[in-house]
Amino acid sequence: MNPEVLLSRIRIVLCRPSHPGNIGATARAMKTMGLSDLHLVMPKCFPDPEADARATGAVDLLQGAKIDNTLAEALAGTVFAVALSARRRDLGPPPGSPRETALRLLADASNSNVALVFGNESVGLSNEEIQHCHAAVTIPTNPDFSSLNLGAAVQVLCYELRLAAYAGHRSPSADSLATPFSSPLATHDEVEGLYAHLEEIMTETGFLNPAQPGRLMPKLRRLFGRARLERDEINILRGILAATRNGTGHGRKV
Amino acid sequence: MNPEVLLSRIRIVLCRPSHPGNIGATARAMKTMGLSDLHLVMPKCFPDPEADARATGAVDLLQGAKIDNTLAEALAGTVFAVALSARRRDLGPPPGSPRETALRLLADASNSNVALVFGNESVGLSNEEIQHCHAAVTIPTNPDFSSLNLGAAVQVLCYELRLAAYAGHRSPSADSLATPFSSPLATHDEVEGLYAHLEEIMTETGFLNPAQPGRLMPKLRRLFGRARLERDEINILRGILAATRNGTGHGRKV
Repeated sequence: MNPEVLLSRIRIVLCRPSHPGNIGATARAMKTMGLSDLHLVMPKCFPDPEADARATGAVDLLQGAKIDNTLAEALAGTVFAVALSARRRDLGPPPGSPRETALRLLADASNSNVALVFGNESVGLSNEEIQHCHAAVTIPTNPDFSSLNLGAAVQVLCYELRLAAYAGHRSPSADSLATPFSSPLATHDEVEGLYAHLEEIMTETGFLNPAQPGRLMPKLRRLFGRARLERDEINILRGILAATRNGTGHGRKV
Repeated sequence: MNPEVLLSRIRIVLCRPSHPGNIGATARAMKTMGLSDLHLVMPKCFPDPEADARATGAVDLLQGAKIDNTLAEALAGTVFAVALSARRRDLGPPPGSPRETALRLLADASNSNVALVFGNESVGLSNEEIQHCHAAVTIPTNPDFSSLNLGAAVQVLCYELRLAAYAGHRSPSADSLATPFSSPLATHDEVEGLYAHLEEIMTETGFLNPAQPGRLMPKLRRLFGRARLERDEINILRGILAATRNGTGHGRKV
């Protein structure tokens, strides 16, 4: 597949960036590597002259950037989202290297849109944001000083994406992940629809107490995030849930 | 050889940098990847508060930076120098990729000091400067916008150097592939118990017709097989199923 098309399907999402200079640096990093789809979730200052200055010739990406209120909104239409994570999260997915992550993103970009998600400069991504992602990536750093600049982190990942896209690297392992008779991967919003449906049924049946939800939903997100649900599978799971409510229930003990 | 020692022998040389922010970004990029030897040839503004601001926790590298009058001076004591080059030079050496260049630099760093040389932001390296170097490296970029920021270019090369230096060493990211708080993988019979439970509930609710089962169970097996279920997750899923049958069902439409 045309590497330019693949790279155009990789969305970069910055969550709550504080420094407009980093937004400009991100645009420049993306454009030098052939990416163009930039989303900003609740940026602190944007547009901003500092962002334009740091973007130099990539101001067009800033002008085309989408502003979103939530990460869920920014991920609409994507089938796979990877979070940059500086540290290991308890409930989040285990992090991969930039190189292997680039291959995974490109494998899915051959059919659909995918996303790389970056957190705020100081606080990173919230646990809730992490749970919207299917995988995590960590850039290996000096353990005594792991404070990568946001724009620099975007640069490293976009560089790996470009190398992989042009390497003919369309990895054998990525191809072999494709299953015959599988259906297209579900989009982020379809998966969220399943979680909402599950939550509703579990609340109705008393399995989930909304006042004390514990870690039930994060655990289910971890499970289904790992499985990377397909559209048909979402339909089956929601069908099962709907049937427990609407079915005749002739066998029930109630 | 100890990767930390190897990285400490790789000198970063900036020739006539115009923007102090890029000097700070260079220091930060170096330190995150474990490099520390910074030389500045005729910097336009240095020291400078903008350099300190962009260096954040890498100000110690700025304080330890050597200021030189010529590139020759900056290369004193090195046995091998590679120039970053955005374009093919008539007189210079043919450029390699960052990945192969990292290997060449590390090979020589096992015995001696080596250098990576970056030119001025606008005009790059002079032909005379290029000729002080033994090799050149080009970072692959979008041909329509190849204007990499200086600090970003330093980041990409230092990242490749760190990866190469630690290749073969067991990386910290490999350790973190184990998920804390995950439970043991479910045994085959525990997974079969889930399938039987699912089949029972689906039959009761009418979602599955045992006379015409179609591919429903094989599809569910494919989904959960892919996820490699853990014991806790089986318990959650079976708990949800049991609750749909035994719960109060106060929200049901039946």
